[in-house]
Formats: sequence, C-alpha cells, structure tokens
Amino acid sequence: KTYDFLEMGSFAGPVAGLFEWFMVFLILSNIVVVALESVPHIWEAHEQTFWYFEVFSVTVFSADYLVRLWSCVEREALVADQNWKSRVKYIFTPMAIVDLAAILPFFLWTLFTADLRFLRVFRLLRLLKLVRYSPGVLSLVRVVYAERRALVAALIIMVGLLFFSASLMHYIEGEAQPNEFGSIPSSLWFSLATLTTIGYGDVVPVTTAGKIVGGLFMIFGLAFYAIPIGIIASGFSNEVHRKEFVVSRSVILATGLFHKLPPTQMHELGVRMRTMESSVGTVLAHRQDEANGLFILISGQATAYFHQRSIPLQPGDFFGEVGFLSDAGRQATVVSRTKCKVLWLESPDLHLFLSMNADIGEQLMESARVRI
Amino acid sequence: KTYDFLEMGSFAGPVAGLFEWFMVFLILSNIVVVALESVPHIWEAHEQTFWYFEVFSVTVFSADYLVRLWSCVEREALVADQNWKSRVKYIFTPMAIVDLAAILPFFLWTLFTADLRFLRVFRLLRLLKLVRYSPGVLSLVRVVYAERRALVAALIIMVGLLFFSASLMHYIEGEAQPNEFGSIPSSLWFSLATLTTIGYGDVVPVTTAGKIVGGLFMIFGLAFYAIPIGIIASGFSNEVHRKEFVVSRSVILATGLFHKLPPTQMHELGVRMRTMESSVGTVLAHRQDEANGLFILISGQATAYFHQRSIPLQPGDFFGEVGFLSDAGRQATVVSRTKCKVLWLESPDLHLFLSMNADIGEQLMESARVRI
Amino acid sequence: KTYDFLEMGSFAGPVAGLFEWFMVFLILSNIVVVALESVPHIWEAHEQTFWYFEVFSVTVFSADYLVRLWSCVEREALVADQNWKSRVKYIFTPMAIVDLAAILPFFLWTLFTADLRFLRVFRLLRLLKLVRYSPGVLSLVRVVYAERRALVAALIIMVGLLFFSASLMHYIEGEAQPNEFGSIPSSLWFSLATLTTIGYGDVVPVTTAGKIVGGLFMIFGLAFYAIPIGIIASGFSNEVHRKEFVVSRSVILATGLFHKLPPTQMHELGVRMRTMESSVGTVLAHRQDEANGLFILISGQATAYFHQRSIPLQPGDFFGEVGFLSDAGRQATVVSRTKCKVLWLESPDLHLFLSMNADIGEQLMESARVRI
Amino acid sequence: KTYDFLEMGSFAGPVAGLFEWFMVFLILSNIVVVALESVPHIWEAHEQTFWYFEVFSVTVFSADYLVRLWSCVEREALVADQNWKSRVKYIFTPMAIVDLAAILPFFLWTLFTADLRFLRVFRLLRLLKLVRYSPGVLSLVRVVYAERRALVAALIIMVGLLFFSASLMHYIEGEAQPNEFGSIPSSLWFSLATLTTIGYGDVVPVTTAGKIVGGLFMIFGLAFYAIPIGIIASGFSNEVHRKEFVVSRSVILATGLFHKLPPTQMHELGVRMRTMESSVGTVLAHRQDEANGLFILISGQATAYFHQRSIPLQPGDFFGEVGFLSDAGRQATVVSRTKCKVLWLESPDLHLFLSMNADIGEQLMESARVRI
Repeated sequence: KTYDFLEMGSFAGPVAGLFEWFMVFLILSNIVVVALESVPHIWEAHEQTFWYFEVFSVTVFSADYLVRLWSCVEREALVADQNWKSRVKYIFTPMAIVDLAAILPFFLWTLFTADLRFLRVFRLLRLLKLVRYSPGVLSLVRVVYAERRALVAALIIMVGLLFFSASLMHYIEGEAQPNEFGSIPSSLWFSLATLTTIGYGDVVPVTTAGKIVGGLFMIFGLAFYAIPIGIIASGFSNEVHRKEFVVSRSVILATGLFHKLPPTQMHELGVRMRTMESSVGTVLAHRQDEANGLFILISGQATAYFHQRSIPLQPGDFFGEVGFLSDAGRQATVVSRTKCKVLWLESPDLHLFLSMNADIGEQLMESARVRI
Repeated sequence: KTYDFLEMGSFAGPVAGLFEWFMVFLILSNIVVVALESVPHIWEAHEQTFWYFEVFSVTVFSADYLVRLWSCVEREALVADQNWKSRVKYIFTPMAIVDLAAILPFFLWTLFTADLRFLRVFRLLRLLKLVRYSPGVLSLVRVVYAERRALVAALIIMVGLLFFSASLMHYIEGEAQPNEFGSIPSSLWFSLATLTTIGYGDVVPVTTAGKIVGGLFMIFGLAFYAIPIGIIASGFSNEVHRKEFVVSRSVILATGLFHKLPPTQMHELGVRMRTMESSVGTVLAHRQDEANGLFILISGQATAYFHQRSIPLQPGDFFGEVGFLSDAGRQATVVSRTKCKVLWLESPDLHLFLSMNADIGEQLMESARVRI
Repeated sequence: KTYDFLEMGSFAGPVAGLFEWFMVFLILSNIVVVALESVPHIWEAHEQTFWYFEVFSVTVFSADYLVRLWSCVEREALVADQNWKSRVKYIFTPMAIVDLAAILPFFLWTLFTADLRFLRVFRLLRLLKLVRYSPGVLSLVRVVYAERRALVAALIIMVGLLFFSASLMHYIEGEAQPNEFGSIPSSLWFSLATLTTIGYGDVVPVTTAGKIVGGLFMIFGLAFYAIPIGIIASGFSNEVHRKEFVVSRSVILATGLFHKLPPTQMHELGVRMRTMESSVGTVLAHRQDEANGLFILISGQATAYFHQRSIPLQPGDFFGEVGFLSDAGRQATVVSRTKCKVLWLESPDLHLFLSMNADIGEQLMESARVRI
Repeated sequence: KTYDFLEMGSFAGPVAGLFEWFMVFLILSNIVVVALESVPHIWEAHEQTFWYFEVFSVTVFSADYLVRLWSCVEREALVADQNWKSRVKYIFTPMAIVDLAAILPFFLWTLFTADLRFLRVFRLLRLLKLVRYSPGVLSLVRVVYAERRALVAALIIMVGLLFFSASLMHYIEGEAQPNEFGSIPSSLWFSLATLTTIGYGDVVPVTTAGKIVGGLFMIFGLAFYAIPIGIIASGFSNEVHRKEFVVSRSVILATGLFHKLPPTQMHELGVRMRTMESSVGTVLAHRQDEANGLFILISGQATAYFHQRSIPLQPGDFFGEVGFLSDAGRQATVVSRTKCKVLWLESPDLHLFLSMNADIGEQLMESARVRI
C-alpha cells in the first residue's frame, strides 16, 4: 500500500528503504545548497543551477506531500471516518505542517515574485523534515518536555546568576571600561561568555577587583551552568536506549495482536513498547530469566529453543507469553537467525492492556496452549 | 482562607494560581527593569516611569508581606500559640526575611533620600523571592548542602591545582611577561581561565616551556575542575525528579490522614514524601506491582480498577493501603482521569509513621476493610 | 609457542610482557620522532639519526609482522584449515592491515625514492598499532559502534542547530562584519566556536542584536552539544569496567573447559565473558552471595574456603559451579593469594552455553560432585 | 592519649576538633602568604612580617611532626614491636614524608642561607598536609588509581587525536602561518587549546581548509576529551558517598568489637566499612527493611525501637546483629537522638569476617540473645 511505503520505510521492503535514504539525502543537500547560495561569488556563478535544484526539490517534496495526503486515509481505515475528514485532520498533524512549511514559501514566491535568497531562512525549515526519518530528534523533544520542570528551575538559577554577576561586574569595572561594562545589559555579554566557559576574550576585566570577582564566578558559577547539560544528556541517552526505532501505529497494527485496540489505547501502547534491533545470533531471551513480558518479532527470523524442541519464529509472531501466563518463568531461549527488530511490552504494561481487553488475553492463552 | 490562597498557589484554586503567575512575572520584570535602568540614555528618557514601576512593585510586595504576616497564624492553628508569638516567629523564617529584604531598602531610601540607582544591587535581591515559586531553586540549595563534603574536597583539590599551576607558570613565564606572570596572584588569572576551560586568551604563555607546562595542566587539570559540575548536576537531577512540586505543611494537612501528627513528624513527613504530577490517562499504579507504599490524591480525579469493580477517587483519597496492609501485593490498577497531583509515601517510611501513630494505622485499616 | 608469546603478552610469561612494553615504547617514540622531525632546525641537525631510527623501527615492525603471519596458523589449529589459507585470511584481519600500513609506506618509499618527510602522516598511522596493546581503544570503537544511533541523532541536532545559528548570525551581523559573517559558510566558524564553548574570540558579534541572538544560542545550544560527550563518556566507562583485560580466543582455550566449542560460539563467549583483575587478599566471591555464574582463574593463585575445609585454586581452575548447579547459593568464599586474573560468565549466559553443549555441563557436574 | 588527640580529631573531643581546624587554617594561610610574597611591592613592605609568619608556621609544623613521631608507638601497641622500630616505620609512611617535606626546606635554608623566595615552591607542598584533614583528597587518589586502566586508555586516545590533529593542521596551515603552524610541536598548542575547548584564540586557522578541518575536530574530537572528566567525576562522587568521614584504625579499635583482628584484616575492614553522618531525628534503620549488615555507633546517641520496648544506644554499641543472625529481617527501628556518626559493615563482608574470626560471631550472638 502507498501509505506503508511512505510511512514504514525499510519495514515495507528494500525499495521503500531506498526511498527513505533518498529523501534524507535530498533534505541534507538542501541545507548545504542554502549555505552555498549565501556566498556571493558562488551564487553569481551558479544561479541557474541553484534554481533548477530548488525546482527539483520542491517538486519531490510537493509530490511526497500530496501522496501522503491522498494515502493517509489508508491509515485511518480502522477509524470509520469519511475520507475528506481524515485528510483535513491529517493536514493539521505536526509532521504535515512541517511538510507544508517546506514547500509553501516557494509557491508564495512564484506568486509574489520575491527573491529566492529572501526565502533562504524558510528553506532551512526543511531540516525539520528529518524528524520523520530520525527517531532521535523526536526523542530529544520528548526529553526536553519530560524534564521541563528541572530545566526551568535550572534556567531560573542560571538567569539569576547571570544578572547578579553582570551587576557586580558593572559596578566594579564600569568606570575602568565604560564601553564594555558601562551598563548591566552590556556587562551581560561578558558574564554569559564567562559562565558558559566560552570566553571569547573580547571583553576581559582589567581591574584587580574585577579579576577577583570574575574568578569567583568562574569557580562557583560554572557548575550551575552545567546542570541543563547533565539533564538533557542523560535524559537523551536513556530515551534513545529505550527506543531503537520508531513505533508507529502501522507497526503495531502489523503485529495482528493489537488491531482491535481503540485508538487511545493504541497510542498508549506505542509509548510503552520498547524496541530492540539485534544482529545475527543474538540471544533475544534466556530460558532461565524471569518472564518479563511479551516480545513481538517485527522483521527478521528467530528460533525458540524449548526444553525438547525448537520452533521457528516469523515476523508477526510473539514469544514470552508462555512464561507470562504460567508464572513458571521464561520457558524458551530465543536466538535470532537474521537481523531482527523486536517489540517488547513489559509485564506490568501487558497486564494492564489484558485487563482492559480480555480478547487479547484469550488469543495469547490459545497460543500458549499450542506451544506447551 | 487567606493563608492557603497565598501559600498553596494552584492547589487553592485558579485565582490563586493566577496570582502566583502574576507575582513571578512581577519579580522577573523587576530584574529586567533594574538592568535597563543602568543604561544611561534609557534612564534619562524614562526616569519617571521607572519610579512609578518601583512604587507599584514595592506596594505589591509590601501588601504581600503584610498579608502573609497577618495570616500566618492560620497555619500555626494546630500549634496552640498566641498569635503575636506566631507572627514574631514568622518574621524570622528565611522566606519572610527575603520578603523583607525585597522592600526594606526602598523604605530606608525614602527616609534617607538616597539615590534609586544606589539601591539597584539590593533590588536584585528580589530575585530570591522566586525561590517561593520554584521548588527547583530550593532543591539546588538542598543538593549543595547534602554534597557539601564532596564539594569542599573538590574545592581543596581545585584550589591546590590552581596555586600549583600559577606558581609554576610564574616561575617559567615571569621573566618573559612580567605584567601577566610577574607574581603568583597575577598568574592566577591565567591559571583559572585555563583550568575552567574559559580561555579568554588575553594572557597566553609565550615561551616553549610555558606552553608545555600549560599544556600538561590542560590535559591533567581539566578533569578535576569538572568534579563539582558532575556532583551538582547529578544531585540536582535526582533531587528534582524526587519532588515535582513543593510539599508544604498545608498540603499534608489537606489530606486529612495526617492532621494529628506532631509538628516535628509533620516536617519529617514532608521531606520523605515524593510527589508526582501526571497527565490524563496515566497509570498511577499497576495491579501486578509489588505494593510499594501509600498514595494520596492531592488534586484531579482518578479511578481504581479492582478485579471486579472500579472506584472513583477524589482529592484527599488515598490508595495503595490494601496491598500495603494485606501483603498480597497491589490490588488495584489506578488510572488518572484528569491531570493529577499525587503524594507517595514509600513502605518503609509508612511503617515508621504507623509504628509511631497507631490511630493512622487504624484509619487505613478501616478504609481497606471497606474496599475489599 | 611463538603465537602465544606475541598475542597473549604477560599471560605468556614475563619475557613476553617485557616485549609488549618495548613495542608500546617503540610506537610512542615513533610518534614523538615524527613530531620532532617537522621542526626544521631539529631535522637539519639530526637528519641522519632520524633515518637510523626509522630503519630500526621498520625492521622491528616488519619482523613482528612476518612472525605473526608465520605463527598465526597455531591459533587456527582447531579450525582444520590449510596453512596458506589461514595466512591469507590473517592478512585481511583488521590488526594485520594496521600492521602492514605501519611498514608498507617505508618500502614504497625506497622503491620510488619519495621524501621521508612526505611519509610523515602515514607514519602517524603507527599509533593505531597501540590498539593491540590497549583494550581501552578497542572498547571505544565498540562504544561508538553500539551508540551509533544515538550519536547520529545527536549529530543531526547539532548540525541543524549549527546551520540555524549560522544563518541567523549571517542575517544579523552580515552587514556590520562582511568578512566574518558575509555568508553562511563563513558564519559557521563563529557558530561552531560558540556552540562547542571553545570561543576563540577571533570573530565576535558587534551589533546588539547579534549579541542577544548569540547569547540565546549560548544558553540553549550548549546543552545539545554536550549530548555526544555524555553518551561516549558513560558508554566508555561502562565498557572499560566490564573488561579489565582483553579476552582473546587463546585465553578462553587456555581454560580447558571450552576448547570443544565451535568457533562461532567461542566468539560469542569472548564477548559475554567479563574479566577482573584483583590484588592480593581480595575476596573474589562471598559464600553468602547468590550464585551468579562461573568464575575461571586465568593467572595467579586463590583459595576457596568451604564450610569445613579449603581448596587451593590454580590457573585454569574454575569455581562457582557448585552453587550454580545445586541452586543452594554460593558455597565457598574465594580469596586471592596473589594478583589474579579471573574470567566471569554470568548465570544466564552459562545456562545458554550449557543448553547447547551438554558435555561442558557434565564436566562441571563432575567437578561439583568431587568438591561437595 | 596524645596520639588520639592528633589523629582522631573531633572524635577525641572538642579541643582536638578545634586543633584540627587551626591546622587547616594555618596550612591555607601558608598558601596565601606564599602567593602574596611573590608580589614585589608587598614583599618589600612586609618582608619582616613574612619572616615571622614563616618561623611561626615551621615551629607549629615541626612540633606537630615531632609529637606525632613520638606518639605513633601508641597506635602500634597491638603490634608487639620495639618503639624505635615503630618510629622508623612511621617516618616512611606517606603522611610523615609529607609532614617532613613541609618543614625540611626551611631548615636546609638556615644551613645554606638560601633565599626564602627560592623556597616558595617547596612551601606550596604544605598544601599536601591538607590530605590528612580532608578525606576527599585521599578519595581522589584512590579513584585515579582504581580507574587507571580507563584513564590510560583515554589518554592514549587523547594523545593520538592530538598528534593527528596537529599534523593535519601543520600540513594545511603551515604555509599560511609559519610561526604558529610551522612544525607539528608548534601546532600542538592550537590543537590542545581546541580539543580541550579552552580556545585562547591567540592561534586560529586562517585558510578555509584549516577552518573546515579544525571544525571537524571540534565536533568529533571534543567528546573524546571529555572521557576522563566523566570517569573521574563519577568515580569521585561514588567514592565520596561511600565514606563520609575517615575510618582510621583508631576508630575501628574504639568499637571494641574488632580489637582482636590481625592488622591485615583490620586494614581490609577499614576499606570495606561504610560511614554515615546523620542529623538529629534521622531514621538510621527501618524495622521493615531487609537486614543488611551491622551498624556501629561511633559518636552521638540513638534509640532502637523494638516491637515492645526501646533501647538507648551509646557510642560503641552496635545494632543490626539480631536481624543478621536470625534471618528474620531487621527487628528494630533505630532513630538518632543527636548528631551521630555510624559505621556500617554490609552483610557479605560481615559474613566473611565472622567466618575468619569465630569469637566475634559469639560476641554478636551474646548481644542478640540479650536483646530479643
């Protein structure tokens, strides 16, 4: 289906994977081209080439946008909506707005004959299209949102320190260097360069008192400016390790197990599921481990070794349900035969979804009965 | 009640929440205004406006201070004290001192007709008033206090390295650059800028020996200057995650469960309780989890799903006590219906408070009996 | 055996350990010499000495390469291959390519009479030979590979921020400083120096708008540039703690227990085994701990204290198998008598290997029966 | 006893604690004075004062050294040695060497009439005396030692990157800036300033190629230079949290429980014991917790709440042994009445020491029998 081709990338087959890489390459090329255009002599020499490249890019992006808009109804099939309503809804999803922002300025330009160079900043917005192809960037947004309280608290401390240091430096150095420290706002530049450890050196205290106060702020202030660094770096690292690839609704639907979930629970499931990619010969689950949830094979092949026999696993198959239901611990060791993508739903989350959807539990029960 | 309005913010209703945001905005405006005043041409153009703004700010802050002072007795109701004693006590609490420091300089000025500009640094103290509205800043104070031993040890190492490097650079570069490295104190400026990685570049070794020694300090010294950064950043991150909003005594009293606790235990309880804020549809507790303490709903609505039925939860209700008392593990899955604020007291701490206050245990017992 | 001498270092005895240190010293000397050669007056004064040193180095490295190539068949003994096939295979292993790259440029030079100075950069490649002697460098490669997804995501964010900030600064400062901010590529230099906190100070915004925008990027951008730092630093620290020395196939073979494993499982084993080095008198395993796998003594001497008696352990002996097989928990406290190197295979991994290789299980069984 | 007074500080009473603070203050004053002396006009104005201060310092330090040397035999009482042998041994302990290095230069000077200013660098060694009073500095030494393998691996990578970047910059920028990049050693200065993010800005690439290569090193190189920072910062933080005050042999002896341990086990015990300081009203152990070892009260007062009654605890008393011996979990909740210092030996370590010293086990048994 067209929608799967665009949305699921390498899940939907090698051609879709190749198309994904082409789009990433085109987006990155756009950024480089915008940068090159700003160099006067390059612009003059290749103005025509830049124009062709821009037309080509906009054509591809527009086609991508329109096909997505047309095919988005495939996704909404399970929500019994009218097609045009689904499409209007789609237009206002964040990714669709980003896609539109990547092409609209160009069309406005042809209407109002503005300068291509004037559009440059808007064309940088195309970088946002990468979000679709890099789960990492989305992770970052989620981290910043999850840590917003800590970050705001850190920001208050940082701004407080900044103004306090700028005021002190203004009183101490103001007379000696009226241009650089003549007012608190102008002192801010020095304080900021110092507290962030950038230290351009264009402004530097010259009086002994200024050096002493500046030195104290260096020693005591730096640690506070590193707080957001620590928060974001560790949060990002945790978030990225939880999700090794994006779990879109399509991926969950593809497993067959959860296709009767209402949309709101589907979303919740997508957030709770962990994802893992593994190379050939990796042990996906140990027989002796505690049973810690349900695993679903998304792509690749694996083998489950039970005590007496082994069962081959195909994409869409799940494992771990025997140990989960029987409380007897993990019953099989599962080893990947090829590169695999696996979804993992931990026991407490699985319990929750089962308690709300009895039919999924029965389906798992059935599968476990067959396997033991 | 007036006290709750001022102290509990959004807990006390939307108007109190709005007032909280207004106070935060007013404090931040004061900081910006103090900075702007220091620019000569802005000061000359708007001297009158600045004056009106200052009078307005002081009026609001003074009213806030007086109302808090007057209403503080409401808080002390359970401690059978005379009102005037409570108020004198209140004056010497840290936050009351900060509030006074934010307004007192203005009144002293009207008495002694000093310059408004002279008061600028004191007016920056108003930034401290933010502590009341941002639990993060308080967290930082607590982290610095908790880690004081590690920080002092790090400081000794840092100061040692600093003096050692400054002395060596003074011996090596002293002759080549008598102005910059002519004495140990003057070498300190270079050493500090180097070890903190600020590197202004206003002073730089010129001899080969100076560059080699400086280079060795860069490689080996930097790691030691990052120690306090790591300590504070990780401590702050842990602290902030433990408390997502402030637990004041009023919040604990509002739960009804603990209102007979003596004040000292009340304080201990406030320190031990963890707080969580959650959005709509979050699972606050899983049925299958180990019972890990008592939860109290502070605001918002939630539903507890037992095996056979579900119970709606209102602010003030607690949950988790069934599993805690019966040792049978968590018995219900609790899902939030609206945005919720929840207090969480972990099992060991709950045991402690129960062993000291038998009546709370009986109250929990009673509730559990009704629910099962 | 020659192969063990070269490959196992201090495992193969003190002379091999000494040879290892000599090679490390020779590689480091080469780097220093290449640096010194580039100083014109040193080069002129000591051209002859440099030449002798280069010939000596190449001789040693060539001999090392040839002996390794000749003796590599010893390692492949268990894989029944023809000798010349093993050697051709060896030539294309990564370390053999590094070894060749360290000497080949010299021989090409004698053929084509190029300048020794021209070869300098290639001679720096000899630094890569250190990888063989420092497990840490290999760890780093593994960390970067394992975290490639997180690092690429971080890179996208960093590059996006970089271009975004460079474009903005170009628009704002472009007119005031046409040389430094006249195009986006030239603005990149300032943006990069700022976001990485290097801050050379050779380019600095001069307009107020430029300082404000630059300041905002300082505060908000820095945290994102620290993400890869956090990822690599924590990953490296974890990786290094897992492996305190390299587990080559030879070391595993030396234990006697696993010499019948097929090569693919041997590799898997090498990756899963943890290694520990301990000083005299360290407690390697506590009697009361949960049984957490099998330990194999590689070098040094230890004593196992059972309830009633004690057993001396020699290199090649394993311990922990009694507790593992009987589910009765660790039965002995093992204390090192000398400096020891120990391999540790955790319980889940051990289960896996036993389930695939019944004979190893029997061997362990036998040993446990004797000991109890 | 004299030895306790000097060695145990505040453990030995308030006067000893005061003396400790005086010594710390005197050491810090020495550092400041050495720095001030190096300023020519201060030196000329106060030469006499500096001389008196130096004589006073040396007198105090010499007295301290001699009294420690004389009283060190008290410590060695349990090791039946001759007094003079103990003293000779003491002279060669690291702290005694530091003490000697702090005073010896002064006496050599009076003999050979060298200049006081010449001794300045040696007088900075007095800073090392702080190690005795700050457990943190010792922790740092231990961390650096424990992480030596990771640090060496990181250093190899850093040096490799440094030389690689310096060589490349030398080839690219060498012609444009022969003074700054004319040889690899001179390029090292720029590379080091860049990779450490110091960025003095005294040397900056001017060619486009140089800026591109420099930029790539900024992005990819920085993360590797942060590795030792991460290792040391996290190691130091862990180490400091494990030990909140120094456990000297004297402290262990004071507990009475372990005074029959042989010296080697005594040392092992000191390393394994964790230490905690707590304020009034802290819960030192919860009744419901798993029994996790033995606690010994070093100073302060506490109360143990059993199910039916409570027992006051004095310095030297231990608690936790009932739960440890009966496997019934912690039996009492212990709350501090005053500021307390507590030693904590975790269960596995306690098992080890008991298995080697049956009499300690009996002593604990006896105490537990009384308490239940």
